[in-house]
Amino acid sequence: MGGPVHEELAALRLVDHHCHGVTREDLDLAGFEALLSEGGRWPGSGISPFDTPVGLAVRRHCAPLLDLPRHAPAEAYLARRAELGTAEVNRRFLTAAHTGVLCVDTGYAPPGATNPRELAEAAGARAYEVVRLESVAEAVAARGVEPDAYGDAVRAAAEAAVRRPGVVAVKSVAAYRTGFDLDPRRPTPAMVTAAARHWLTAGGGRLADPVLQRHLLWTAVDLGLPLQLHVGFGDSDIRMHRVDPTHLTDWLHLTAGTIPVLLLHCWPYQRQAAYLAAVFEQVYLDVGLTLHHVGPARARTILAEALEITPFRKLLYSSDACGPAEFYALGALAFRQGLAGLLRDLVDADEMSLPDALRIARWAGAENARRVYRFPADS
Amino acid sequence: MGGPVHEELAALRLVDHHCHGVTREDLDLAGFEALLSEGGRWPGSGISPFDTPVGLAVRRHCAPLLDLPRHAPAEAYLARRAELGTAEVNRRFLTAAHTGVLCVDTGYAPPGATNPRELAEAAGARAYEVVRLESVAEAVAARGVEPDAYGDAVRAAAEAAVRRPGVVAVKSVAAYRTGFDLDPRRPTPAMVTAAARHWLTAGGGRLADPVLQRHLLWTAVDLGLPLQLHVGFGDSDIRMHRVDPTHLTDWLHLTAGTIPVLLLHCWPYQRQAAYLAAVFEQVYLDVGLTLHHVGPARARTILAEALEITPFRKLLYSSDACGPAEFYALGALAFRQGLAGLLRDLVDADEMSLPDALRIARWAGAENARRVYRFPADS
Amino acid sequence: MGGPVHEELAALRLVDHHCHGVTREDLDLAGFEALLSEGGRWPGSGISPFDTPVGLAVRRHCAPLLDLPRHAPAEAYLARRAELGTAEVNRRFLTAAHTGVLCVDTGYAPPGATNPRELAEAAGARAYEVVRLESVAEAVAARGVEPDAYGDAVRAAAEAAVRRPGVVAVKSVAAYRTGFDLDPRRPTPAMVTAAARHWLTAGGGRLADPVLQRHLLWTAVDLGLPLQLHVGFGDSDIRMHRVDPTHLTDWLHLTAGTIPVLLLHCWPYQRQAAYLAAVFEQVYLDVGLTLHHVGPARARTILAEALEITPFRKLLYSSDACGPAEFYALGALAFRQGLAGLLRDLVDADEMSLPDALRIARWAGAENARRVYRFPADS
Repeated sequence: MGGPVHEELAALRLVDHHCHGVTREDLDLAGFEALLSEGGRWPGSGISPFDTPVGLAVRRHCAPLLDLPRHAPAEAYLARRAELGTAEVNRRFLTAAHTGVLCVDTGYAPPGATNPRELAEAAGARAYEVVRLESVAEAVAARGVEPDAYGDAVRAAAEAAVRRPGVVAVKSVAAYRTGFDLDPRRPTPAMVTAAARHWLTAGGGRLADPVLQRHLLWTAVDLGLPLQLHVGFGDSDIRMHRVDPTHLTDWLHLTAGTIPVLLLHCWPYQRQAAYLAAVFEQVYLDVGLTLHHVGPARARTILAEALEITPFRKLLYSSDACGPAEFYALGALAFRQGLAGLLRDLVDADEMSLPDALRIARWAGAENARRVYRFPADS
Repeated sequence: MGGPVHEELAALRLVDHHCHGVTREDLDLAGFEALLSEGGRWPGSGISPFDTPVGLAVRRHCAPLLDLPRHAPAEAYLARRAELGTAEVNRRFLTAAHTGVLCVDTGYAPPGATNPRELAEAAGARAYEVVRLESVAEAVAARGVEPDAYGDAVRAAAEAAVRRPGVVAVKSVAAYRTGFDLDPRRPTPAMVTAAARHWLTAGGGRLADPVLQRHLLWTAVDLGLPLQLHVGFGDSDIRMHRVDPTHLTDWLHLTAGTIPVLLLHCWPYQRQAAYLAAVFEQVYLDVGLTLHHVGPARARTILAEALEITPFRKLLYSSDACGPAEFYALGALAFRQGLAGLLRDLVDADEMSLPDALRIARWAGAENARRVYRFPADS
Repeated sequence: MGGPVHEELAALRLVDHHCHGVTREDLDLAGFEALLSEGGRWPGSGISPFDTPVGLAVRRHCAPLLDLPRHAPAEAYLARRAELGTAEVNRRFLTAAHTGVLCVDTGYAPPGATNPRELAEAAGARAYEVVRLESVAEAVAARGVEPDAYGDAVRAAAEAAVRRPGVVAVKSVAAYRTGFDLDPRRPTPAMVTAAARHWLTAGGGRLADPVLQRHLLWTAVDLGLPLQLHVGFGDSDIRMHRVDPTHLTDWLHLTAGTIPVLLLHCWPYQRQAAYLAAVFEQVYLDVGLTLHHVGPARARTILAEALEITPFRKLLYSSDACGPAEFYALGALAFRQGLAGLLRDLVDADEMSLPDALRIARWAGAENARRVYRFPADS
């Protein structure tokens, strides 16, 4: 246990290239449980979200950060959480993550969530913003727009959104809306107008039209910023069989040489994501969200699969923390322990030199993200 | 090796929530080999089903139960099997499984197989019955029915079948017939009549019509009993790319709040099944059949993948034993060793407390099934 | 580490049932890097193909074969490579692989590559040839043929190609051209003529028509030789979601009892390939190409997944080496270490007897291929 790779990662201030706000509300057991699982609450079922790998990980790794014994019961955990107050709890978990940079997806946040500035303050980190393209388009529709002006209006709104200070990337949740089995070509203006007419006539709302989704992906290309794509694991709105990222292969061929594409989460498609990262220069991946859901004990296996053929410049860290601040601490812990364990064993088996292992740890934990996002020099 | 989790699982009488009859016929080498593999017999190929992971597991773990040395050769194994006689052999393997409850799928059994009562007697267990919906529908067709009476007749026959004493669940083999890429909506009576006309006119037989298959899934909802679904691994009638259980996502949304859905076997889709179990309250899974085919040495890896994000209330045990009684002993052994090894290592790494590990072992081995199936109190 | 299984595999002259020529050209760093990755070169990206698992494996395991320290830097490695000269380098790596038989796919080779005779000489092995069916068809088109003569011409050309001495198998890269979601039936002559007309009118070139691809698969059946199929991992021309080999299930049913079908590479579909090998008598698999790309440290995991339910008569060895001779040495090393480690641990856990382990090692490393390809007796 431990050793130089663990120490390197422990000392490293991570770049968390995809995360969300944490709730500032005080949470009771039911409220906490609802945020703990991608399945939400199942009242009356007798099935507690604490009885999951992530629930065990909270009791094992987060309880001590609240001065409780390891494996504290859920009730005691929530009582102590309430006693300390959410502000203090958030501060503890956010600082425990030891993160230097946060790229905050502001397109989704639980009720009462911190904004990026508050998050940065609590974490002692710099915060940047990630603009969710579907939110931009839905806001354009909500403001009211003629179908034949939709394409230009979305483009203009997206350009305005990303020009704001601190914005470093855009994100699409096409995975949740249409899946990736899309025509890869840029839709013509006439196609966009027709699809917009259909959508707007039906009252707008949640964008899930395949043509408008393609339009957003191509808008990302025009914006020129890195594009984050939700892949794989998420809540029950995902149709998992439609989000194998290799469905994007033709689109990646068409857009090669333009923007970096960052595949988020990826489980259970981490090998498919790794394949894309191995053969397309512009593709990167992380296994965020998965790491805290499987827990530190299993994170190493997921990282090992994600790294089987992946160039070491292509793996990034994200927590995808959202809601309870615990996920910031757990994601970082699972990443550090999983990656360090993996690299240390390779060094011990003399399959990798120690300097190589330390370099790969720094790359994945921070430097790869810095290369892709080109943060201002002082961050 | 060993320790309290192993002891807990060794002492626990398992609930085997999906299994079949065992053959009462004496088997020679060729007959045994034919039942050993999902590939059946390949006469003249020179490829023995003993030269597989399950074949090795039989020689390693079943031979000693017949008083032979570990790793006994196949010929010696069959000779000893014949010497003891099938009744004694069955008794030994069924009691070795140490099972308290058997849920027997009576829709498929090898020739000369035991019925549930005989199985229970040999195992010293309680037996319940699982009604296969395709068999009900095919029997209705075989008896003769007008197309416009088909829907009601199937419904009535299914209701009669599940009203029989001891029936605790229904099962569908849609995986074998159409795969899961079905329209999730309940078919209208007119659609059912049209599809039934087509099928009955063609002579009935093996039901594989997508509308009639959907009708059966919705009949299960009406019946109100837990529904077992074959997922993944099976014989060459499976089209594996069509049985990714996440194809059922829309149907699971439509039927949320109705019946429990139990995904059987699942390999190689155990992660996809785990995702569904994590986000849908009504979804459960097991990795039966797989466990004895991969053998005790590998069962732990499969269980670890199945449990990555699965709520601990959602994993059940099944053997899916069918034909040779060896599979009862092997399935139970692989489950106990695999799960105990997994949990013990988590306890040893202090990622899980021992009381949590013992509880999870009891849940997966018996109590989760008891919650879902609500067996009469005396079982 | 080590022990009798390692020794058995170290002493065994492998049969490499699928490989390619190695380059005879002197390679500078850029030239070597371009051949090291399935992603090719990404000039200006700052991402070196050495910063990958296979890059580390070259520095770790190949450097010492060039008299360099383990983990030598890339620059030093290429300098030493140049100093020794490519002929000497090739000789060292090819003999390090300790291969008795090479089945060389001559349908693709890097510029300046060795032919099978030269390869065999450098390796001290016997070489046989594998005929790529798409190359045969494309040559027929290039020579000029009337659409209605295309089917017969391809058949005649393929028959002529496989009658040449030393040809032991045919290969299809349908995975790269159309994927496997093809109508399984043999196309009629009229369909072939129509598809050929379409293709030839468009100028021929790269064959990617689904009817003509099916025609080639059925031509393989007529030829009667074993058919190698690229499955899974490869360069960015692959659409990974279309190459799940279980899409071939109906075709495998239709062609049962005819030719052996050998699934190559397979990652990330090794479990799907294993399923097919378990239920179809004629299906075999390897995890070539993957082994050196994931590196010796990870090869064991891939082999373990490939062997979960696979009959031990069905696993073959291939390097799929192509370009740098390093891949011959690395593929063989990864296979030997991975398989030996896997088998040894099973023996140590008493899950497998040592004689069984030694037999399985010999089968997978050489004898299974000898059974399938029936090389002349003196090889």
